[in-house]
Amino acid sequence: MRCEVVAVGTELLLGQVVDTNSAWIGEQLALAGIDSHFQTKVGDNRRRMVLAIRTALARSDAVIVCGGLGPTQDDITREAIAEVMNVGLVRDPGVVEQIRTLFGSRGREMAASNERQADRPEGSEFIPNPMGTAPGLICPVGHKVVYAVPGVPYEMQAMVASAVLPDLQRRSGDASVILSRTLRTWGTAESTLAEMVASRVEALDAVGNPTIAFLASGIEGIKVRITAKGPDEAAARALLTAEEDELRALLGPLVFGADDESMEDAVAVLLDGHQLTLGVAESLTGGLVGARLASVEGASGFFRGAIVAYDSEVKFDLLGVPRGPVVSEDAAVAMAEGARKVLGADVGISVTGVAGPAEQDGQPVGTVFLGIALGDNAEAMHVRLPGDRERVRQFACISLLNLLRVRLLEL
Amino acid sequence: MRCEVVAVGTELLLGQVVDTNSAWIGEQLALAGIDSHFQTKVGDNRRRMVLAIRTALARSDAVIVCGGLGPTQDDITREAIAEVMNVGLVRDPGVVEQIRTLFGSRGREMAASNERQADRPEGSEFIPNPMGTAPGLICPVGHKVVYAVPGVPYEMQAMVASAVLPDLQRRSGDASVILSRTLRTWGTAESTLAEMVASRVEALDAVGNPTIAFLASGIEGIKVRITAKGPDEAAARALLTAEEDELRALLGPLVFGADDESMEDAVAVLLDGHQLTLGVAESLTGGLVGARLASVEGASGFFRGAIVAYDSEVKFDLLGVPRGPVVSEDAAVAMAEGARKVLGADVGISVTGVAGPAEQDGQPVGTVFLGIALGDNAEAMHVRLPGDRERVRQFACISLLNLLRVRLLEL
Repeated sequence: MRCEVVAVGTELLLGQVVDTNSAWIGEQLALAGIDSHFQTKVGDNRRRMVLAIRTALARSDAVIVCGGLGPTQDDITREAIAEVMNVGLVRDPGVVEQIRTLFGSRGREMAASNERQADRPEGSEFIPNPMGTAPGLICPVGHKVVYAVPGVPYEMQAMVASAVLPDLQRRSGDASVILSRTLRTWGTAESTLAEMVASRVEALDAVGNPTIAFLASGIEGIKVRITAKGPDEAAARALLTAEEDELRALLGPLVFGADDESMEDAVAVLLDGHQLTLGVAESLTGGLVGARLASVEGASGFFRGAIVAYDSEVKFDLLGVPRGPVVSEDAAVAMAEGARKVLGADVGISVTGVAGPAEQDGQPVGTVFLGIALGDNAEAMHVRLPGDRERVRQFACISLLNLLRVRLLEL
Repeated sequence: MRCEVVAVGTELLLGQVVDTNSAWIGEQLALAGIDSHFQTKVGDNRRRMVLAIRTALARSDAVIVCGGLGPTQDDITREAIAEVMNVGLVRDPGVVEQIRTLFGSRGREMAASNERQADRPEGSEFIPNPMGTAPGLICPVGHKVVYAVPGVPYEMQAMVASAVLPDLQRRSGDASVILSRTLRTWGTAESTLAEMVASRVEALDAVGNPTIAFLASGIEGIKVRITAKGPDEAAARALLTAEEDELRALLGPLVFGADDESMEDAVAVLLDGHQLTLGVAESLTGGLVGARLASVEGASGFFRGAIVAYDSEVKFDLLGVPRGPVVSEDAAVAMAEGARKVLGADVGISVTGVAGPAEQDGQPVGTVFLGIALGDNAEAMHVRLPGDRERVRQFACISLLNLLRVRLLEL
């Protein structure tokens, strides 16, 4: 089974938007065991879209067309696929009403142009879009198939996962199951990780299944992905789980989660387990730490809140930081204690530092102090973080969460 | 003159690396006035690379092949282009020596495999690579041309700018320039925007230059892109500026910025202009509003800080919100006033609401109140936001920043 991706949008060719959708779809196809040999970008031009889809269809069994399903005149994926199928478009009155209802629920009137989103090539079927107005399409072309999905990433991803991949696997008739699991690590370099698990890489190289891959993910750390193939799901899962146990034993607390588990999820589980509430004091991060914690479902169980003391006066007045240099170990300790007290929490954490572009208090860009007040102990640690303003802020945020995680693990 | 890009690398198809090179090259081609109608990604497979290059060459006058020039066995761009040209490879002893010298200057020994990087298809010429070991190639195919450049971004960019674009422009004999500008809007649907500027779309359709395109960007609103072509940069810029003025007149305050200007940039400029400082009170957003404001360089000029009052008790104790339902107009007003007072700011803004997954205070998920305290006025507005927990939080954040922007525009 071979499936190509055709990403539609003049903005992609002009480099105004980087096509990340094709990469995401490519990864999903690979995990599903479906080959993808070519990916194409084409502009909002009907003749060229038809050519791109036909070219892809000649080389492969299936084509996923991504983008061009919006309501405006340059959204012509529906028309292009109908031309490839050599059929006309039919408008579905039920889908028109669904779109109208969606607009109504947002307190807005549907424009006439949105009715075009209820068009489908004759012989095709809709893929529902619970997150937006544009439904997707499954369009049979002989014994092959063309799918259309929106260009908005989260709508596209939901549709590919729920409808396109299952349909592709059904058509492929391949019953073997490929599963993967990603262990997420934070706090060490890729080369060190690779050395720590070298014995497993060697053992697996001999058998070829499961496989291990390292994926550097910037501020989110390094991912170690295990991919296992089996005749059925139970067999694939057994291989996966056994390998996960081996790797976790070698990596210990460097692993903070698996798959979609984030650093804040890990922290939330630990706080819940110890029945502790948390208060945060932030400076250069501006609210990033609080925002990540609040993104966890059920955050209200442990998260009291945060004081974003961006201005030094706010640090002094509200958090009780002694007047003096605010990028310092002392200030970080006082901020953590102040957050705990002012927010009425069991644990206080803090971050202060220099995000740039200019240095502050004689400290260079990237200088960051992380503080934690837990039980009778209040401490701060100094880190030097690389990168520009945005990266320093993001690194500071995850570094603080990891410090909290490690201290909670030690309880 | 039409030029396609073929990006080579199995890691691109598998989604392990996002292909940003093609986007960069696409932008350079557009700025040089060269049309690029298709871009293709293909894996490190000789047969499929040959097919991809031939397909591109059949549709266009020139092809830039990016990647696959390294020293390892899976780097086979040289071989694939030679097959397309139907010629053999010749090894250039002078280039072998250059590569050996480069290794020597880095204190390393050249591996035998690096000699392959001195191969070129017969009839082609090298493009020097001052930054790495792999030279590029200019390969005439009849009256068309194939270029090969490395996949390492900075090496590729230097080579495209110094050798490929000048060669393309010499071949095209066309000196025209294409420029584009993106107006960023927030607060209305794509279809409504399209209706507001319908007169311009119609007028431009008649002449074909400049062009307008709409680009839905999720919670960041809808972008309206103007693209203009002219015989030189001054002429293209004049067309672009004239069209921007027309669109801004039609769209009014819906436009919050252009190109890379974000909503927080717009707010920062207005606060700076009015010499006002800002304090924020956040609940469901957990710190997102503060984090966006603090991301602006120079935020310390206007941003005092934020109180993330996630727990209701923090709203009552720290912000002085009267006890009662915290997802309400009254609570939002009290939070904005509290933020202004506690943080010592000129303006206070606030957001409280239900991000989900469960309802709260009898209010359904997506119910959000935005508050603002500015001068003698304190007010709140009620909005219903779509989507899941994360989207409700993101929508709430930008909705609040937009409310602040609109009120500041009215001053």
